[in-house]
Amino acid sequence: MPKDSLDDLNSRLKAFAQTRNWEQFHNPKNLTMAMIAECAELVEHFQWLTPEQSMNLTQEKHDEVTLEMADILIYLIRCAERLDIDLIGAVERKIAINEARYPVEKVFGDARRASEYED
Amino acid sequence: MPKDSLDDLNSRLKAFAQTRNWEQFHNPKNLTMAMIAECAELVEHFQWLTPEQSMNLTQEKHDEVTLEMADILIYLIRCAERLDIDLIGAVERKIAINEARYPVEKVFGDARRASEYED
Amino acid sequence: MPKDSLDDLNSRLKAFAQTRNWEQFHNPKNLTMAMIAECAELVEHFQWLTPEQSMNLTQEKHDEVTLEMADILIYLIRCAERLDIDLIGAVERKIAINEARYPVEKVFGDARRASEYED
Amino acid sequence: MPKDSLDDLNSRLKAFAQTRNWEQFHNPKNLTMAMIAECAELVEHFQWLTPEQSMNLTQEKHDEVTLEMADILIYLIRCAERLDIDLIGAVERKIAINEARYPVEKVFGDARRASEYED
Repeated sequence: MPKDSLDDLNSRLKAFAQTRNWEQFHNPKNLTMAMIAECAELVEHFQWLTPEQSMNLTQEKHDEVTLEMADILIYLIRCAERLDIDLIGAVERKIAINEARYPVEKVFGDARRASEYED
Repeated sequence: MPKDSLDDLNSRLKAFAQTRNWEQFHNPKNLTMAMIAECAELVEHFQWLTPEQSMNLTQEKHDEVTLEMADILIYLIRCAERLDIDLIGAVERKIAINEARYPVEKVFGDARRASEYED
Repeated sequence: MPKDSLDDLNSRLKAFAQTRNWEQFHNPKNLTMAMIAECAELVEHFQWLTPEQSMNLTQEKHDEVTLEMADILIYLIRCAERLDIDLIGAVERKIAINEARYPVEKVFGDARRASEYED
Repeated sequence: MPKDSLDDLNSRLKAFAQTRNWEQFHNPKNLTMAMIAECAELVEHFQWLTPEQSMNLTQEKHDEVTLEMADILIYLIRCAERLDIDLIGAVERKIAINEARYPVEKVFGDARRASEYED
């Protein structure tokens, strides 16, 4: 049975860090800082675009955006590994929570945050 | 042959948004804002911890952190879908770039950023 | 001669931290994490709004946004204090840099980032 | 009577944007994205440092950090201007809230977040 692709990346990223003796820096505190820094580089690409423009990137910008998203996933996988978290299982759990929290008939076409529905 | 788990989550998240008529809000500009907001909720868990403490979370905090990481991956998958980006392929490309940029003998045990090696 | 308002806030915030024995947590690493977490809470208010909607907030949302911006400035002042940085002087220096980097005739009505002008 | 330094910077930054016809891009949604991107550049400087190292920067890094903090304050001032928010007054209000929320005898030497005290 083929290994899942996320498991495979996890092994390669862990080896990459170990070979360079970088695991000493890869604690969750540091990794979340690195993750949000990459996330902000992604945000930066979109900050002056309209929402419509953000759907239609030039090939060059699309390519840069692709690599920024890779960086975020890399740090997410590293952080999950250090904390022994199953990312796929976590998303499945969160989808179930969201389905209960946002029933279709209550939130159809409405993007307000969950907390704003409490009132 | 089993579909990859990331593909499966992608389909479910897209259906979740479509059923709620939320795709109108899910342009990359908005999705990167949502992603960084989730990322900051993750950071917030670690801001007053030492690096050592960040490796040893209580069960309750570990659980909260797991769901924050799920949120980040959810928005990353959504954003990749809107921009037609293959996340796994992007990480593979980025690993290759990093291997060329950070040769073991140059960066062993040293966490300075790539740009700082240029000098 | 009246003290500048930023100096006054700095003194009060430092006293606030000292009285609570919180300066031990207030190193720049931790403070920048707290700052970006507050910044993301601000971003979260705008993530599903159109640019136009972001200019016209309800009174309630305007009030929440005001306090999020206060939080960011609080951590910015604290971080500057720990690193002995003169924030006002820093902005003045940066304005001078930006005036040289973005001459009016080159960037009029164009929001591309500085690096994109290099080509 | 001298104008407050923050008021002065506000006037100069507004004129800077107007002269370049950039106010069209300076809605709060875009400005908060720019602000968090700058904030992440600040975080990036500290991500691999220990808390102790973050207190003792080299002169070169201190200088870079100073300009990143200037960028954050610039966007904070711009955003406050667009939303007609008095930043100094907002911080004063927030300090009063924090004094009520974190009484010295309850939080002395303890950095847990406010919500964690509720239990």
